[in-house]
Amino acid sequence: MKKAVLLLSGGLDSATTLALAREQGFEVYCLSFRYGQRHAVELKAAVNVAKTLGAKEHKIADIDLRLFGGSALTDDISVPKDRSDFDISHGIPITYVPARNTIFLSFALAWAEVLGAYDIFIGVNALDYSGYPDCRPEFIEAFEKTANLATAYGVEAKQHITIHTPIIAMSKAEIIRQGVRLGVDYSTTISCYDPSPEGVACGHCDSCVLRRKGFEANGLPPC
Amino acid sequence: MKKAVLLLSGGLDSATTLALAREQGFEVYCLSFRYGQRHAVELKAAVNVAKTLGAKEHKIADIDLRLFGGSALTDDISVPKDRSDFDISHGIPITYVPARNTIFLSFALAWAEVLGAYDIFIGVNALDYSGYPDCRPEFIEAFEKTANLATAYGVEAKQHITIHTPIIAMSKAEIIRQGVRLGVDYSTTISCYDPSPEGVACGHCDSCVLRRKGFEANGLPPC
Repeated sequence: MKKAVLLLSGGLDSATTLALAREQGFEVYCLSFRYGQRHAVELKAAVNVAKTLGAKEHKIADIDLRLFGGSALTDDISVPKDRSDFDISHGIPITYVPARNTIFLSFALAWAEVLGAYDIFIGVNALDYSGYPDCRPEFIEAFEKTANLATAYGVEAKQHITIHTPIIAMSKAEIIRQGVRLGVDYSTTISCYDPSPEGVACGHCDSCVLRRKGFEANGLPPC
Repeated sequence: MKKAVLLLSGGLDSATTLALAREQGFEVYCLSFRYGQRHAVELKAAVNVAKTLGAKEHKIADIDLRLFGGSALTDDISVPKDRSDFDISHGIPITYVPARNTIFLSFALAWAEVLGAYDIFIGVNALDYSGYPDCRPEFIEAFEKTANLATAYGVEAKQHITIHTPIIAMSKAEIIRQGVRLGVDYSTTISCYDPSPEGVACGHCDSCVLRRKGFEANGLPPC
């Protein structure tokens, strides 16, 4: 069975990506991060998702990005609520964490190399709502090239490592449709940028709004 | 004054790189890692080097790469000693830590973005003794491209971030010559892969042998 490392946040997108990787026949090694995020409740969700969707293994890496700051997800900066007009043209959101996906993918690369895996999955999405520079296809392409030069893959193994982004061009509605088809239980996931300490979604941040619209578009109750 | 983030290990190469960055007029923010390395004594050296060579700030990030393993620097794998024939043709050394420089540069990128710095320095060397895939110029070029796509630099700031590798093509002897010229006190640095718990260099690993030869080539006593 082919091994793959998958970045798992506990949100809807990475859960669906895991289901898609499993469908493609991969033995999946999930990697999550305790990076100083305010919504650490997502790690509990990640543990559940990994178990439910048949991950081979799940590791949580400790990397405190509060060391640098610069984001509403790690600092005492308010998460925007009830914005009706958010879209990519408004620039980079305050919820962007500097270089986060580069850091996450670097760790995935380290684990992949140790495992002898040639595939990494990341549930980035460039379409529905983004503005995050490190969710763009051109970033993923550049990282893939870097990954192959950074490691033994390009030197000894003569193998190529591939960064898979199966949902990068899907709408939120399409992502949910795929997940439902594959039996993802979205009640185990959490998308909110600003949940209560008990893990209840706020319902008003960009991520909650997008998630609700995605379920509505499929004629499903919010979840 | 232009700000730069510099990866500082406490070794000879990164100390010299710091001196060269200071000579170029940068205000330098040094970044070191507690990554599970056996030779944690190098972090004490890094603190000293940062202070002595006039770093503006020095942060140490905690990232335990023992989570993945796969290297003589983080695991219970013996460091080779007294090898007379080591060179790049022998492939990737067991002291290679999977994806380490990619991870280190990703963290440097995060800090640079928060600081508003457009320059990152790393003391990689591809010439004298290497075999490390993530010390090659083509890796650095690929990472620089990725860095510009990963962050606000390529989107909002319309600025370019540069990865500087001033010693990448220097021999060890040349690195030491540059450092001596700039007043680097090499007695504060440690290069050994396998020092005693008290911080005494073994004198027999590849890194110790190279260091000794570098001083000898300059007609200087070992240091």
